[in-house]
Amino acid sequence: MRPDWLDAPIVVPSQKHRQDALSHQQQLTKPPGSLGVLEKIAVDFAGWQNKVLPELEKLKIVVFAGDHGVVASGVSAFPQSVTVEMVKNFSRGGAAITVLAKNLNANFEVVDVGTVTDPGPLPSVISSRVGAGTSDMSQGAAMDEKQLYTAMEVGRQAAIRGHKEGVQLLIGGEMGIGNTTAAAAVGGVLAGLSPTLMAGPGTGLDSEGVAKKAEVIQKALDKNMPDAKDPLSVLRKVGGFELAALAGFYITSAQLGIPVLVDGFITTSAALAAVRLRPELADWMLFAHLSEEPGHSALLAAIGGQALVDLEMRLGEGSGAAVAVPLLKMACTLHAGMATFAQAGVSQG
Amino acid sequence: MRPDWLDAPIVVPSQKHRQDALSHQQQLTKPPGSLGVLEKIAVDFAGWQNKVLPELEKLKIVVFAGDHGVVASGVSAFPQSVTVEMVKNFSRGGAAITVLAKNLNANFEVVDVGTVTDPGPLPSVISSRVGAGTSDMSQGAAMDEKQLYTAMEVGRQAAIRGHKEGVQLLIGGEMGIGNTTAAAAVGGVLAGLSPTLMAGPGTGLDSEGVAKKAEVIQKALDKNMPDAKDPLSVLRKVGGFELAALAGFYITSAQLGIPVLVDGFITTSAALAAVRLRPELADWMLFAHLSEEPGHSALLAAIGGQALVDLEMRLGEGSGAAVAVPLLKMACTLHAGMATFAQAGVSQG
Repeated sequence: MRPDWLDAPIVVPSQKHRQDALSHQQQLTKPPGSLGVLEKIAVDFAGWQNKVLPELEKLKIVVFAGDHGVVASGVSAFPQSVTVEMVKNFSRGGAAITVLAKNLNANFEVVDVGTVTDPGPLPSVISSRVGAGTSDMSQGAAMDEKQLYTAMEVGRQAAIRGHKEGVQLLIGGEMGIGNTTAAAAVGGVLAGLSPTLMAGPGTGLDSEGVAKKAEVIQKALDKNMPDAKDPLSVLRKVGGFELAALAGFYITSAQLGIPVLVDGFITTSAALAAVRLRPELADWMLFAHLSEEPGHSALLAAIGGQALVDLEMRLGEGSGAAVAVPLLKMACTLHAGMATFAQAGVSQG
Repeated sequence: MRPDWLDAPIVVPSQKHRQDALSHQQQLTKPPGSLGVLEKIAVDFAGWQNKVLPELEKLKIVVFAGDHGVVASGVSAFPQSVTVEMVKNFSRGGAAITVLAKNLNANFEVVDVGTVTDPGPLPSVISSRVGAGTSDMSQGAAMDEKQLYTAMEVGRQAAIRGHKEGVQLLIGGEMGIGNTTAAAAVGGVLAGLSPTLMAGPGTGLDSEGVAKKAEVIQKALDKNMPDAKDPLSVLRKVGGFELAALAGFYITSAQLGIPVLVDGFITTSAALAAVRLRPELADWMLFAHLSEEPGHSALLAAIGGQALVDLEMRLGEGSGAAVAVPLLKMACTLHAGMATFAQAGVSQG
């Protein structure tokens, strides 16, 4: 049964504070508009925080990890054991996202939504296992309804923890060998794009591997017949535990009035499912980077998002979002810290 | 007389440390190449610092300010008085670049290379006035040879100060009403592109203003007949004091073994002049952002540079470079802080 919280109200950003922030921008000692995207970001945060001079000091990064039954069909360059090995690496602080989270002084946690083997208790890792990986979507549905809603609830709880911690931004990351395959399937169905367009190298497939991956996705679509008009069934049939958790995480964030910075290919696919469920959610999303994964630009177009940077990254984990955080911080710092023409005695054009 | 230092040796980045850094990158717990541009940056810094694990902790930002005689021909949306007004704003910390420099904990100084009116002693402002603005290049040469070499020496001294302070990165910024006109002239001659292609809105001209600006540049070229094969004469005839200082700053940085992060349109024009003088300099340059100023992409192509980000900025002052600094820092932090596959017990693909 579709949980009630999915349909709870999403906060409406404050138009008044957006307008006031926009007026403030026009008074700062620079040619109007010359800070480009940074001006827009400051205005977005003003609307989100109900403050003319917003700040971005506290943020939380949550990496959702899960395994994928479809890996049995040979869709990844890395063995499935890597998902749990990387969970341990996150816990010890050796992975890219943990190095970045520490650098950003961000609250950080890993949520095990369902890896194949249970890594047991680990520092910074929350065990919320929905199952020992999904079922192979090329043979049937990746998960059942109960698993779907449980995984979404796991994401919801992570957003609620962030809210209790008082963070001003939430970043969802993911880890899961095989999850570009699930993300390509989910994103492709929702955006109306073929597996051939959506399948990419992931962690490093060659062109033959990519072609096979597209075939496996097509097989999963033929088997499951997911309906683009029903994003929940798409997530259930051809998604993954971490994708479902991310969708729940994004929706809850917006319900709690916290903006999210979407990372790359996999997270955008989950974000697209979430936005199709709750279109108002789009007002709470920023998109960090354009991934090298070839399907990402099409997913961004489908969701109407504009990536802040293109650094040819394709790592996942939330790393592309973490790298973009200083841009958001600087946007707020400039907005609040610059002098106005009147304050500085500078002539206007 | 061409000063001797212009031809002093430029440090050769360490190929050994670049190779070792590249090997190190292959061992980190991520798919090879998945950190994209950040991996290349870490390798660049390894070569610059003769260290497999380089760091970026200390940097210096120098804003060169100068006025332009060509403003008399009506090429800017802002009055000339703004140059000095902004120098005062830099000194008091109210401008974008000062907010960013503080945020980055960067050493910061403004160098007055020749504004129309002398602002007098101000905190953080170094007075190295070559003249009270350049001459109007539409009527003759913008400066004489002595002024050119003095301005370049002013830039050189700023780089030497940075070296003494032990910085690992230098950023040059600029302020000068009318300096997109000079930069368009210098860059256009050196890149072989017409004034119509190079002239843009600057601080905010409308299309009529841009057309007039292109005409003024054409007039300056007809009058001065600068020779693209002689970058020094191009800087002298149609450049500006801050452009010449930037060229000297960039060359000296590379002679001292300090990389530079080039900002936007005006600085790229000065960088192009510097690289044409000393091609080895290109090994020490990173390019921060693609400016909204329409000629910038052509200048980047001419210098063979790739901008790290495109945030639709067009402010100058070094602001685009400052905004990109966290990306460089993160590249070094990831490179040094991530675990290797062996350390983390993660399987390789």
